[in-house]
Amino acid sequence: MMKIAVDATGGDHYPQNPVEGAVLAVKDNDQLAVVLTGPEQEISKELSKHDYPKGRIILQDAPEIIGMDESPAQAVRNKPHSSIVVGLGMHQKGMVDGFVSAGNTGALMAASAFILGRLDGVIRPTIATYFPTVKGMGLMIDAGANLEVKPEMLFQFGVMGNIYARDIMGFETPRVGLLNVGEEKEKGSETLKKAYVLLQALPNFVGNIEGRDILAGQADVFVCDGTTGNILLKFGESIPDALKMLLMGAIKKRQLEKEQVALIISLLEEAFAPFDYQRVGGVPFLGVNGISMVGHGGSSPVAIKNMILNAVKMAESDINKKIIASVA
Amino acid sequence: MMKIAVDATGGDHYPQNPVEGAVLAVKDNDQLAVVLTGPEQEISKELSKHDYPKGRIILQDAPEIIGMDESPAQAVRNKPHSSIVVGLGMHQKGMVDGFVSAGNTGALMAASAFILGRLDGVIRPTIATYFPTVKGMGLMIDAGANLEVKPEMLFQFGVMGNIYARDIMGFETPRVGLLNVGEEKEKGSETLKKAYVLLQALPNFVGNIEGRDILAGQADVFVCDGTTGNILLKFGESIPDALKMLLMGAIKKRQLEKEQVALIISLLEEAFAPFDYQRVGGVPFLGVNGISMVGHGGSSPVAIKNMILNAVKMAESDINKKIIASVA
Repeated sequence: MMKIAVDATGGDHYPQNPVEGAVLAVKDNDQLAVVLTGPEQEISKELSKHDYPKGRIILQDAPEIIGMDESPAQAVRNKPHSSIVVGLGMHQKGMVDGFVSAGNTGALMAASAFILGRLDGVIRPTIATYFPTVKGMGLMIDAGANLEVKPEMLFQFGVMGNIYARDIMGFETPRVGLLNVGEEKEKGSETLKKAYVLLQALPNFVGNIEGRDILAGQADVFVCDGTTGNILLKFGESIPDALKMLLMGAIKKRQLEKEQVALIISLLEEAFAPFDYQRVGGVPFLGVNGISMVGHGGSSPVAIKNMILNAVKMAESDINKKIIASVA
Repeated sequence: MMKIAVDATGGDHYPQNPVEGAVLAVKDNDQLAVVLTGPEQEISKELSKHDYPKGRIILQDAPEIIGMDESPAQAVRNKPHSSIVVGLGMHQKGMVDGFVSAGNTGALMAASAFILGRLDGVIRPTIATYFPTVKGMGLMIDAGANLEVKPEMLFQFGVMGNIYARDIMGFETPRVGLLNVGEEKEKGSETLKKAYVLLQALPNFVGNIEGRDILAGQADVFVCDGTTGNILLKFGESIPDALKMLLMGAIKKRQLEKEQVALIISLLEEAFAPFDYQRVGGVPFLGVNGISMVGHGGSSPVAIKNMILNAVKMAESDINKKIIASVA
């Protein structure tokens, strides 16, 4: 039986979505139990609305709540009874096999690194993120944990992203690329040039990837520093709204029938579906000594279910042993 | 009479587009003369296809051509008779009021800095680029000239971008923002935090701008290092093709009438027009002791005409005196 702790107070729609996500997850996987961490009464009340296999959803009281705007380090230090600190503490003690949350990413990163510690040989834990391309979902790493990097860190991001993409995302041989200003080996800052040389040790390193090659899916794993990754991630998230605005502007200039507008809107929704971050099942902190994932604040119950099942996958695939072996 | 030198061998469609662009420009502005630099015979032949006010388009022989893939520094050193080196040399000697090209950006940046030199007080010349938003055209600075930056450089990019946006792009009071991973003053790398403090000296500094705020047009001038700017610029350029692919995928899944597909495509073209970099009239190198602009390799004749007229505007507005005064 696999056990995953779930932050019942994480995200914009708690406790509803984490609780429903947990219910969906245990129904989907009968070898799974979930521990919901958060204010016991509130969660218990929410849970009572659902029908679920008793005994496979357990409550762990954690009355303190970390807000989305709190300073990560302080929140972790000052709120030992928060759902995040309690859940990660249980994982650190070996009581559960992983922890997931749709809460404050900064607090989760800080708490994961602080409570779980680093894996042997890993310079800095990192956060990866899914990034949609025309060829399907790619992985961008780092997405904002390490704003300034050294070449060795970029190398390790490539190594960790490679393992995650292969074992969890299902790429047989992920193409690992380094985000840069040009394709040629000698392009870019000194840091990027040195990272290029180090990454050549990966047989599936495909070299430098330019900005225009990201959406085109010219790599599966995009290695970058956390500043670039964070800006690109949020830029990508903003594309559907911006283009809907531009298209609606073009539509308004013409006299279109209601049905034509409805058709266009439904085509747009379909085309933009890959960019809907509320459907993505969470992203991992990699390089920490444990399994810890974070989901978008707007995560739907299905997104939370998928995040829980991804955490199970990570635990089952022994991803951390592989990372330790690869960075050694 | 204003005189602008135009690289007749720059871009993907030379000498046709530069020559036609020059013809359009002198027809548009009767106080303008253009010097076309490049292989004389070839340009002369192309020019003879056009009807234009004689005496206001002059040829300057420059038989060497710098390829799009040549190493910038070497090309400038080894090809003194190239159109770029000849044109910038004329500008440096005061024979023309500015130089424009749709050629190799790296070579142009290197040649502009080397031949024209830096403006007093400017730490590093920079390249700015237009960036479309839902509110119209913004300016991103730096777009790839300075891959690693110091806070003082970012401050100067903000100062120079502010002046360009106001005097050339027509913003009354441009909103100058710093690209960062969060809105709050204390967010980001040490470099970005220090740049924030320096940029507060600009009364129209609007603070940090996140990735999601770029397309939404939450600033008019986006200040960043050249690595981030270059990756974002090329990423932005790739959006229309990627989304057309996704939309065509959605369209193919349904049985749509020919007219419906045609309508959607024409709406798309209209919505994506702001992203068409072939229509943008060139972008400036700022901080060099002169007027030097570069256009997209695919620049249309109209784009080249607009670039020439922008160079005239820069020369007329005495932009460099204002930059010297502002960075002092």
